[in-house]
Amino acid sequence: MAKPKRIDHVAIIVRDIEQALCFYRDTLGIEPSEVKDVPSEQVRIAFLPLGGPAGSEIELIEPTAENASLNRFLEKRGEGLHHICLEVENIEAALTEMKDQGVPVLDEQPRIAAEGRAIFIHPKGANGVLLELLEKA
Amino acid sequence: MAKPKRIDHVAIIVRDIEQALCFYRDTLGIEPSEVKDVPSEQVRIAFLPLGGPAGSEIELIEPTAENASLNRFLEKRGEGLHHICLEVENIEAALTEMKDQGVPVLDEQPRIAAEGRAIFIHPKGANGVLLELLEKA
Repeated sequence: MAKPKRIDHVAIIVRDIEQALCFYRDTLGIEPSEVKDVPSEQVRIAFLPLGGPAGSEIELIEPTAENASLNRFLEKRGEGLHHICLEVENIEAALTEMKDQGVPVLDEQPRIAAEGRAIFIHPKGANGVLLELLEKA
Repeated sequence: MAKPKRIDHVAIIVRDIEQALCFYRDTLGIEPSEVKDVPSEQVRIAFLPLGGPAGSEIELIEPTAENASLNRFLEKRGEGLHHICLEVENIEAALTEMKDQGVPVLDEQPRIAAEGRAIFIHPKGANGVLLELLEKA
């Protein structure tokens, strides 16, 4: 079993990170550790850590004009919760186990994510939740 | 500012907790700390802790037949991510601050939740996310 160690982050898709930070940073008071462009994923991400080193992050994700799938998500569902990311020890072992168990995995090989190497599980295999499994870099 | 301390839990609405545990417990390998009925909220909840005492939980929530609002959610959107819960030090202070800042709050007074006292912020005030602020019991 993949036996995830912790929730690494919960991702929220937003139209405009600066506008979203008016609430999450200025009203709620969560200080971003970093706001950066991730060109490989065609997104801009604000990392909002909570709970210290053992804690989890909220990630605000703003798709760039070119990110077709996230823009479709925004058009269809609007802003909101997008996925949960769970940290695992070994992403290759997790991928093999998920495939062996017949879990619908969106990746044939681990992909390079902002925080390490990851695979995504289709919501139809996880009770409607898009689930990322991540081996941190 | 409310300055949340940590992510307490991420809630997933499911039709049948036992079916959902086939994936989250048996395939992924997250051991529930408890599965219990919460009659005051007309739900059954499986608590899936991750990351030890400083970590966060996934909560699988199955509405009972009587829980009208969650059943509407299931009919309209199907199973999936429902809300994020952030722990705060003082729920009364957080409620006052949210109201003062014009944040749309769903509660006039803190409500009794499974884990303590809580208020909910309407998704229109939090970029499409239903956000729970919780003072733990």
